[in-house]
Amino acid sequence: MVSNLKIMFLGGVGEIGKNMTVFQYENDIIVVDAGLTFPSEDMPGIDLVVPDIIYLVSNKEKVKGIVLTHGHEDHIGGLPYMLGDINAPIYGSRLTLALVENKMREHQKIQYKSNTIKEGSVIKLGVFNIEFIRVNHSIAGAMALAITTPVGIIVFTGDYKVDYTPMNVEIIDLARFAELGKRGVLLLMADSTNAERAGHSMSERVVGQALDEIFAENATRRLFVATFSSNIHRLQQIFDLAVKYKRKVAFSGRSMLNVTDTAIKIGELRIDKEIIIDVEKADKYADKELVVITTGSQGEPMSALTRMASGEFNKIKIGDNDTIILSSSSIPGNEKMINRVINNLVRLGANVIYNEIADVHASGHAYIDEIKLIHALVKPRYFIPVHGEYKHLKAHADIAITMGMQARDIIMPDLGLCVELNKNVLKIAGTVPAGKRLVDGLGLGDLDSMVLKDRKQLAEDGLCIVVLGLSDESSEIVSGPDIITRGLIYSAEASNMVTEAKESITDALKELDLKQIDRLELKSIIRKALTVYFFKKTKRRPMILPIILEQ
Amino acid sequence: MVSNLKIMFLGGVGEIGKNMTVFQYENDIIVVDAGLTFPSEDMPGIDLVVPDIIYLVSNKEKVKGIVLTHGHEDHIGGLPYMLGDINAPIYGSRLTLALVENKMREHQKIQYKSNTIKEGSVIKLGVFNIEFIRVNHSIAGAMALAITTPVGIIVFTGDYKVDYTPMNVEIIDLARFAELGKRGVLLLMADSTNAERAGHSMSERVVGQALDEIFAENATRRLFVATFSSNIHRLQQIFDLAVKYKRKVAFSGRSMLNVTDTAIKIGELRIDKEIIIDVEKADKYADKELVVITTGSQGEPMSALTRMASGEFNKIKIGDNDTIILSSSSIPGNEKMINRVINNLVRLGANVIYNEIADVHASGHAYIDEIKLIHALVKPRYFIPVHGEYKHLKAHADIAITMGMQARDIIMPDLGLCVELNKNVLKIAGTVPAGKRLVDGLGLGDLDSMVLKDRKQLAEDGLCIVVLGLSDESSEIVSGPDIITRGLIYSAEASNMVTEAKESITDALKELDLKQIDRLELKSIIRKALTVYFFKKTKRRPMILPIILEQ
Repeated sequence: MVSNLKIMFLGGVGEIGKNMTVFQYENDIIVVDAGLTFPSEDMPGIDLVVPDIIYLVSNKEKVKGIVLTHGHEDHIGGLPYMLGDINAPIYGSRLTLALVENKMREHQKIQYKSNTIKEGSVIKLGVFNIEFIRVNHSIAGAMALAITTPVGIIVFTGDYKVDYTPMNVEIIDLARFAELGKRGVLLLMADSTNAERAGHSMSERVVGQALDEIFAENATRRLFVATFSSNIHRLQQIFDLAVKYKRKVAFSGRSMLNVTDTAIKIGELRIDKEIIIDVEKADKYADKELVVITTGSQGEPMSALTRMASGEFNKIKIGDNDTIILSSSSIPGNEKMINRVINNLVRLGANVIYNEIADVHASGHAYIDEIKLIHALVKPRYFIPVHGEYKHLKAHADIAITMGMQARDIIMPDLGLCVELNKNVLKIAGTVPAGKRLVDGLGLGDLDSMVLKDRKQLAEDGLCIVVLGLSDESSEIVSGPDIITRGLIYSAEASNMVTEAKESITDALKELDLKQIDRLELKSIIRKALTVYFFKKTKRRPMILPIILEQ
Repeated sequence: MVSNLKIMFLGGVGEIGKNMTVFQYENDIIVVDAGLTFPSEDMPGIDLVVPDIIYLVSNKEKVKGIVLTHGHEDHIGGLPYMLGDINAPIYGSRLTLALVENKMREHQKIQYKSNTIKEGSVIKLGVFNIEFIRVNHSIAGAMALAITTPVGIIVFTGDYKVDYTPMNVEIIDLARFAELGKRGVLLLMADSTNAERAGHSMSERVVGQALDEIFAENATRRLFVATFSSNIHRLQQIFDLAVKYKRKVAFSGRSMLNVTDTAIKIGELRIDKEIIIDVEKADKYADKELVVITTGSQGEPMSALTRMASGEFNKIKIGDNDTIILSSSSIPGNEKMINRVINNLVRLGANVIYNEIADVHASGHAYIDEIKLIHALVKPRYFIPVHGEYKHLKAHADIAITMGMQARDIIMPDLGLCVELNKNVLKIAGTVPAGKRLVDGLGLGDLDSMVLKDRKQLAEDGLCIVVLGLSDESSEIVSGPDIITRGLIYSAEASNMVTEAKESITDALKELDLKQIDRLELKSIIRKALTVYFFKKTKRRPMILPIILEQ
């Protein structure tokens, strides 16, 4: 008798980022991807968000390997917060593993084993045979997986697009998808990010042509291109244009330096090192001799481009002979920051070219026609849409239905959902523990912690400390109440409000016999009096911390 | 001899929102619009942002009137924070003034005078003659201004579009723009919001047709339409469709109730009150008999739609027989919140239709072809682009140049800029004080205040209070150091870190003669020791508040 295969979603399915999918057959587990995401506005002071892996930790001896589809942060960024607990070997393409290695350099204590996989090859992890299939994406070395399990074949696309004219790499291995489809695929799990976009995504080569035109038209001007540092093919195109138009290249931004260094080392980026110059020496070159490749396409506050835009970047000053290309798209949530950077650059006189006004960026994710192509080739018995917000997953399910699948053969994934599969059934089989772990300077925390709640209250309403000294014997007030506030009172009103706040405490304590009242209750009385006073006066509820001293 | 006319920009030119433009000729000042904007993420706890009006306050006897182009928040929302200081009469259309009245109800102490203006009429304020010209926009009662000054005529469009098939109102008064152009316009100041969008904006009537189709296709389903409460013409169309398809209408959301009430009262919204039902009774009607008109199209956390999406709205539960139309566009910065609402609605089974997938919203601002039409009719001698982010102002200036204007005859406005104008010159003449005033429960503050800086530090890094008791005579430590933290340490690590933090203080004080050290210096030593400890341990810099008590 054959058991069911279990598929569990530990990553943020239906949100952006932190992908992690777990496949289990009896005592064998494989993990596909281990991503991170960035905090939302209700998580002040948090740096990163990674999946809760308690299910894996409690089954750690079963984990045979961690398989990575590609090297984007939302697929590998969670590894440093996982490998300490789950000591399984990692499998991925050369670039993917080089980026993992970069990342793990900041976590030197963690030991891990990694194995470079070439496209087309097959590995065996427990009962699973995993074949790596070449796909196109906005990073080199992206691969889909064909996972042969005891119940049947699962095709897992990872992030992909179909680019008939990609840069430096071959077209997605459509023939292999077709062969698998012919052999019979039990389940397809496929990228949904652009399932609402009609037609076919733009080719990376079209971006190259648009950039070439901009280089030609701006022959006498200084050029800047901001893009994602992991988009090696884009970097290659910019490099090739620099050679063609006889410009030197300066890199700006730490991640840009790290990634290009790595990519050059492993041969993914093929460039003449002669034309790279140090950004510190950028001002030694005439405008027409230079192109600066920079980070900051998302308007990140500390990035080189953001600092150039606000005039705080000493190495380079932006002026009216500069043309700046944002060769990127807006990650949802970043629009306002990106607009601010564009506005500041325009204010400094620069000409700014971005996605909305020229073809300077191509998405790395399949549009509807490409999605249909994969469905038509793979012809799966069952389907689970993955990668994308919930609305995208739903749109992808609708595409599968218009192509003839039955709604009952499709399952919408969700965080913590456990799905069971055999050759006759795809069904929801319950849930496993799953959620967000928050990473900040302190290490790992959780969303419900008091720490975050306190930070939010402090941020929005400020703080009031009351120090009250009572005599040891008689419990009379011998000092205070003294009041310290932060983030609460504008200085113009300060002395007046502090006086009134003190009075509200004195009033509250006036009738009480402090000898009879325990200290916790006393604190609560003070807290209540001040809460009422500040709410009446400011419509806010500051955090109130009474400190009682027996003197 | 004729003096120069001065134009000063007190509103957030080059940003979104809080419009305010000041025209001064010798001792006569008029103010056009008094808007607000919403805080950015670096202003925790702030509710609103309004213009700094110190220039007007110090010239208040000269202010002859405040002229309002239309009733959107970014044009009238600053009035409550202005009328207390500047007691000038207000002029605007009937709907604009009704919305001002709504707003001022929460500021009962402030007295003000208002005068309803009909389109086509002219008022005299000091040396200025101001004519109100009908325009199309996403709110009823929007008007452009033709300001006749001693130096010439200024055409100020306010927010506008050219809608050849508007709802319930007439087409923008193009003939009047043409007549003025023929007579000779010295300066055009015109809306730039959509100066990057090619072609002509969609007509409001097209939205009606798209909505009609959705009503027809969803005959058996319950319908929801989320839109801006001030978009009276949109509300009228939804109402008309409710009548046509025999549905009752329920309103949800406080601002929706307020604005529709006002609009019905003054006759801008013409509806049969019989078909309005209380949202509390929505569940008494079959799905096909009901349309709910709701706020929350921007994903505002407390709005009805957001609460419906998260299942927290008791009056209405969303399910798979619901179709929800977001008849709106995303205001930049709100994309992530809006996506979250859409994802949650889809998760509950609803069908969600929004701007990107159907023509369910039309912009209220002119596209490039409409902008060119206005320039062609008005034929100004000088030009200043207004309304829009800086990149939009720049794009608008570029349009004027392609139509034949000289760059030297165009000035880019900026916050606090003072421009001088006479019939032969348009020039920058310096600056006036201008900036942001922040409104929160406390009243009015300013961006540089310690309050905001403190809130940011507290939000991101948390707080550590140290209480140290020293004996009055010998200055020996008699109690403490005691440590209280908030937003800083996750509970699992708490006791360990508190112990170490105390040790770091004890270590720092060990070698010192506390009698010799003044209290400020002692605090600074404690602060330093803890800053070093916490940074090493957590990579954060909490706010450290030492409290020294002499006992």
